[in-house]
Amino acid sequence: MINIAIMGHGTVGSGVAEILINKSNHIAKSINDDVNVKYILDLRDFNDLTYSEKFTKEFSDIVNDSEVDIVVEVMGGINPAYNFVKSSLAAGKSVVTSNKELVAAKGAELLKIAKENNVHFMFEASVGGGIPIIRPMARCLAANEILEVKGILNGTTNYILNKMIVDNMDFNTALKLAQDNGFAEKNPASDIEGHDACRKICILASLAFGKHVYPQQVITEGITEISLDDVDYADSFNCVIKLIASTKKLPSGKITASVRPTLVSRECMLSNVDGVFNAVMITGDSVGEVLFYGPGAGKLPTASAVVADVIDCANHKSFPSYIKWCDGEDGYVISHDEKTKLYVYAKSSNFAALNDQFNDLFGDAPCIKNEINGEIAFITNEELESVLQKKINKLSAETKKVMHTLF
Amino acid sequence: MINIAIMGHGTVGSGVAEILINKSNHIAKSINDDVNVKYILDLRDFNDLTYSEKFTKEFSDIVNDSEVDIVVEVMGGINPAYNFVKSSLAAGKSVVTSNKELVAAKGAELLKIAKENNVHFMFEASVGGGIPIIRPMARCLAANEILEVKGILNGTTNYILNKMIVDNMDFNTALKLAQDNGFAEKNPASDIEGHDACRKICILASLAFGKHVYPQQVITEGITEISLDDVDYADSFNCVIKLIASTKKLPSGKITASVRPTLVSRECMLSNVDGVFNAVMITGDSVGEVLFYGPGAGKLPTASAVVADVIDCANHKSFPSYIKWCDGEDGYVISHDEKTKLYVYAKSSNFAALNDQFNDLFGDAPCIKNEINGEIAFITNEELESVLQKKINKLSAETKKVMHTLF
Repeated sequence: MINIAIMGHGTVGSGVAEILINKSNHIAKSINDDVNVKYILDLRDFNDLTYSEKFTKEFSDIVNDSEVDIVVEVMGGINPAYNFVKSSLAAGKSVVTSNKELVAAKGAELLKIAKENNVHFMFEASVGGGIPIIRPMARCLAANEILEVKGILNGTTNYILNKMIVDNMDFNTALKLAQDNGFAEKNPASDIEGHDACRKICILASLAFGKHVYPQQVITEGITEISLDDVDYADSFNCVIKLIASTKKLPSGKITASVRPTLVSRECMLSNVDGVFNAVMITGDSVGEVLFYGPGAGKLPTASAVVADVIDCANHKSFPSYIKWCDGEDGYVISHDEKTKLYVYAKSSNFAALNDQFNDLFGDAPCIKNEINGEIAFITNEELESVLQKKINKLSAETKKVMHTLF
Repeated sequence: MINIAIMGHGTVGSGVAEILINKSNHIAKSINDDVNVKYILDLRDFNDLTYSEKFTKEFSDIVNDSEVDIVVEVMGGINPAYNFVKSSLAAGKSVVTSNKELVAAKGAELLKIAKENNVHFMFEASVGGGIPIIRPMARCLAANEILEVKGILNGTTNYILNKMIVDNMDFNTALKLAQDNGFAEKNPASDIEGHDACRKICILASLAFGKHVYPQQVITEGITEISLDDVDYADSFNCVIKLIASTKKLPSGKITASVRPTLVSRECMLSNVDGVFNAVMITGDSVGEVLFYGPGAGKLPTASAVVADVIDCANHKSFPSYIKWCDGEDGYVISHDEKTKLYVYAKSSNFAALNDQFNDLFGDAPCIKNEINGEIAFITNEELESVLQKKINKLSAETKKVMHTLF
């Protein structure tokens, strides 16, 4: 009998409880043992559930019960989750979490504590909701050196951008709709400013390259400045705007990492990821590019990823984890000057001058000109980013917007 | 020290040897032990390699060497691979294979022998080349009951169809080009007639639903009858033609399984899978739809999947495998009458009569009519397939073509 405690009975927590309780037969088959949800920790009262007797408000009930094998942390936030997880690991219990904030901030430390105690710390559900990513990356691509990871890691912003692209809805209306449909929080900052995607790319970068990447090391830009004009111009270049999180290993051993709105060519699989779906593209030195796609959030998808980790913990009670990374360090994540194409939008009341400068500097770059509005939008040819930026700086324009591209 | 024998030094086998030998440090880190390729079995001579001393022509060298822990079978075909794999498992060696023909024909039996001998039988590379599919399905989606699996499992046919769709190239020219580029064999039958995709959907269906599905149980249709007209009509309905392999669980516990050319809506992620790439979409009861995409063949991608299995075997020397399915049975795979939309093409020298029948039977179905050629192409509304077939039979036409659709 495997005894499990679930900390948190919100959206994901209630999904985990439902799957573990309602599908206990299915799960028992996967682990050749019975599963029992022994405790659910939540400060709120849940008196009308078939499993109301499992609730406790005291973490000590869980950590002090030697029968509890696996602790599921689905409370979210750093505190008190961090202390609860640390104590659980130290007490010899494996921990499964969906808490990306916690893993992005404390992953290396918690993995170390898990190792010292010969237990697991697993977090498949922390990136990409229900999509299998962590395990495929660590296990199935184990023969590869990972070179690059890029993807759409936030469903809320992808939903908003999709509404702007497909329904020509402006940002604020699309955000409101996302909120009305439960795809965005009342306070949407962590999604629309890119912080959520940032935490997830930190986790993927840490796993891919073996060293912890902290959120503050990642260049993070949200989607609040994207206008319908940008969307239209992108369309003219056969692109869509997506919030792309990416990380790449450099020959020096250092890495780059960023979250930013990007013009993605419609030829690229990532351009086809619509609505609240997520996708991660991983480049390995042997396999080339593989992509994982699916629901990036939601009660049951996320809960199913949590339960997959629970099954894995139960199947490998004291087996060393395949997830390994060490502490990060200052200077590990850097900006790197490499060849790229940029999207540029410039607007000037002196269109003739702007147009002359454009012709001088960017010559035959594919462009859209709107003389009446004084606007030029174009995709540069491929050059070193520093070279491109210098040229872009020379354009005399009242308004300038530059975005990265993915072709 | 983990000793490995590789049986077969063709495309995949040489890739496996290269990865295991050239990246031995990387792999040693993943398994906390050294790896050593002790034998390579091949009847041909390879005298000029840095590792020529490892070659043998005698299987007995491998099976009788108690130091060999893991046998990699990348010879292909049923014989002698089947006997070699059986003997290796019986001798207590784990076996990793990329041989879909063998797994589709003998998977249940070989898994049983592996279990009896407390060793592994693994075959990640047998479906989808380098794309992680088997492990994610068995492990990451373990909390799910799998409801349906569908995908593009053959890169050769996808390449040919893509050339027809994008470059308006006819079937024979596209096939020739595929052969010239090494994407199709001299004798392309097993690809273009659907047998290769059939073997792969057998493996996925067996794994998804727990009972062996044999190739002869699967309705299999190739792409040799697809014309450029079909491609054009599909385009008019915002669809592309793809060779779709699919399997689905029915409420009765029985399943359906088929490989057939299908009109896939451009809204569907599978429509965007181009060239020799493969993709598999899995529907789970909790997670919903997830998709895995990547290179479905090729030396290093396939070899990297083989080596991932080798790493897994080395890490779990005598651990029970997570891959389980039992013997199949007659009557397990059935045809099932369900609601669907069909694509229909009909051509008649009496267009007026055909048109009247079409209007009577299919009313407002979206259609393209070419009176001069006497042709009508249309997508039916959604009805039971048996009902649709009866109506289609009533159309008086010299030529009729019916395809399934995926919207």
